[in-house]
Amino acid sequence: MSAVTALLFDVFGTVVNWREGISRDVAIIADQKGVSLDPAAFADSWRAEYQPAMEEVRSGRRSFTILDVLHRENLKKVATDFGLGALSAEDEDFLVTAWHRLPGWPDSSEGMLRLKQKFILGSQSNGNIALIVNMAKYANLPWDVVLGAEVVGHYKPQPKAYLNACTALGLATENCMMVAAHNDDLVEARAAGMKTAFVCRPTEHGVGQTKDLHAEQDWEFVAQDFNDLADKLGL
Amino acid sequence: MSAVTALLFDVFGTVVNWREGISRDVAIIADQKGVSLDPAAFADSWRAEYQPAMEEVRSGRRSFTILDVLHRENLKKVATDFGLGALSAEDEDFLVTAWHRLPGWPDSSEGMLRLKQKFILGSQSNGNIALIVNMAKYANLPWDVVLGAEVVGHYKPQPKAYLNACTALGLATENCMMVAAHNDDLVEARAAGMKTAFVCRPTEHGVGQTKDLHAEQDWEFVAQDFNDLADKLGL
Repeated sequence: MSAVTALLFDVFGTVVNWREGISRDVAIIADQKGVSLDPAAFADSWRAEYQPAMEEVRSGRRSFTILDVLHRENLKKVATDFGLGALSAEDEDFLVTAWHRLPGWPDSSEGMLRLKQKFILGSQSNGNIALIVNMAKYANLPWDVVLGAEVVGHYKPQPKAYLNACTALGLATENCMMVAAHNDDLVEARAAGMKTAFVCRPTEHGVGQTKDLHAEQDWEFVAQDFNDLADKLGL
Repeated sequence: MSAVTALLFDVFGTVVNWREGISRDVAIIADQKGVSLDPAAFADSWRAEYQPAMEEVRSGRRSFTILDVLHRENLKKVATDFGLGALSAEDEDFLVTAWHRLPGWPDSSEGMLRLKQKFILGSQSNGNIALIVNMAKYANLPWDVVLGAEVVGHYKPQPKAYLNACTALGLATENCMMVAAHNDDLVEARAAGMKTAFVCRPTEHGVGQTKDLHAEQDWEFVAQDFNDLADKLGL
């Protein structure tokens, strides 16, 4: 196997627990407004708007637009559906930046610090630069470099999202390994020539999760968490 | 004064000692080839080609081209001038990536680790992403984010080089401070609305240096090195 120099990570779900973070912050707004809602269902509904919004960009119907803007647009729709009505600018900002304040999984920070000793760690997320940088400060995520959609100008799973990230590091795709909790992300990374590591996050979608509980291909590495991945990579 | 959230650093000269690093590596090649040359003069000559090469891009005569490519083109010219003749592909790669292996100033790593406790630290260099990432691993530079020319698509001192870096962080320019050892870099950063910090690097160009020995405007901060800057920023 040719040497891996860089690990490129999916972020939402793989590194951070978006459902918990969004639930926590929408519960604060709902309490303030005296609205009764299911915070986790709100988080799921907001997240469900994510792929359709990016698809407008991927299809070329819309020019490249950062995720903070897509989140803000989608928020208006979901807030209405959940009875929050029209949000003040302040509340809207608070919720849009809730995506900048997502908690890492318990092993994320420690595991990444171990992996950083041997590899370049890059975020390869659809999140925009400010989102990923602020989240890293909040959750203590020691990135060497923020890559991803805003840097390369393409949303995953478009092939250029993977290819351009490796090129930006001056590396062949085979010298980069995609780390993700989502089999479909790894399918595209492998198609682009990258190595692949599946890290299981069985409660990303809550305790009833049915998807991505197992590796669905012979990924180069399969790990229970980032510490397990560090063990398997000889750290 | 409005709060500063991010420090954006010039890199060549401000964070790393390019003249020492290039001298060290060209001396290795000259020895191997049995060529007698002044390594520091070689470094100066190579560096002298830097601005004219970027000016081709800034002027619009050439589409955006990363610095590794410009360094490689300029190397051929300087190698001939200094009697190294045609370089093998291996020697050429070694010298082009010498810019990825530049040593930090003695205070760089420690001072940045202190500054990182309070601020977002971004590189705002004309170096490309791979160059800055590899240099950070080599010299232990704890960036939160690699910005600069390849991310924003513009070479300093074009105004968009400064403006787009702040925008990528989701910040107004007044909430970002440019840290540089070069007065002319700070002039442009201030014109873009950024705060400014001058850090004196009196031997960047060797012991006979005559330029940038003093702050030439009333920059918000003037420091002797990064530890002094950390002191002055209350860390």
